Amino acid sequence: MSRLENSAEHSWHVAVMAMLLAEHAEPAIQVDRVVKMLLLHDIVEIDADDTFLYDETASLDKADKEEAAAARIFGLLPPTQRDEFTALWREYENRDTADGRFAYACDRLLPMLQNLANQGQSWREHGVRFEQVLRKNLPIQEASPSLWQYVLPKLEAARDAGWLA
Amino acid sequence: MSRLENSAEHSWHVAVMAMLLAEHAEPAIQVDRVVKMLLLHDIVEIDADDTFLYDETASLDKADKEEAAAARIFGLLPPTQRDEFTALWREYENRDTADGRFAYACDRLLPMLQNLANQGQSWREHGVRFEQVLRKNLPIQEASPSLWQYVLPKLEAARDAGWLA
Repeated sequence: MSRLENSAEHSWHVAVMAMLLAEHAEPAIQVDRVVKMLLLHDIVEIDADDTFLYDETASLDKADKEEAAAARIFGLLPPTQRDEFTALWREYENRDTADGRFAYACDRLLPMLQNLANQGQSWREHGVRFEQVLRKNLPIQEASPSLWQYVLPKLEAARDAGWLA
Repeated sequence: MSRLENSAEHSWHVAVMAMLLAEHAEPAIQVDRVVKMLLLHDIVEIDADDTFLYDETASLDKADKEEAAAARIFGLLPPTQRDEFTALWREYENRDTADGRFAYACDRLLPMLQNLANQGQSWREHGVRFEQVLRKNLPIQEASPSLWQYVLPKLEAARDAGWLA
């Protein structure tokens, strides 16, 4: 792979993945709401830069930047749509519903599968540790124990292969 | 704009557009089904090349190529998902339901808006005629008279500006 996915490509990719994996959500989710959340979840990156998941410093003021971005961007819409889109985005960010948790889990799972498919490229580039991956991706386990059972042995194999520090 | 949207970017873009314009469908549609159709509608282009809308010759065997592509690509999925995805794709292609017609209309409307936003770039590059645009985009009128009322004066202005032959 010669370049990273951009946000539009990623949003399409993860929305289709959610359609395919919805049956593994536990508790069950409303896939249509999850798809909408995933189509919208990265729009705030138009204003607020993308932050590498394992960059702990850059993540500190991420929430503030994204709140401002959501207010400006969704604020371009008529009030009813502004409120609907903002609520879906916030539900994704807060992960306080089964739908929000599963959408977030899909967004964690996709780059993990991509790393597993390209010999841990971005893990190796950034010196990511196995324990970091376990901790940051706990939301997958919370939203779908069966998907976590599927990826955990692959992560252990990645560690054993030296793709994770 | 320095390059065309690729299929993933386009599919994300048109799905979000459908979420925003769903209220203008007439008769009313189920936006969730329309969004799914639009996320899937271009997957067949993995095998079957994209065809420029106004290229009448290339469009001739497009349907056969896309049928073969759908059979192969959706055939990679477990049977239940294969059948669901194939049915959604076919409903989009056949436009024999309100949902399929509105999804198709969105896919027509987006490049039209993009052409109107960049001084008719791809129309001018290919010498597209005003009458061709009216005929090819009749599906917009059929799925949403109000959206057609919105774009028709803009198309007439584009013709008057010489962006359409």
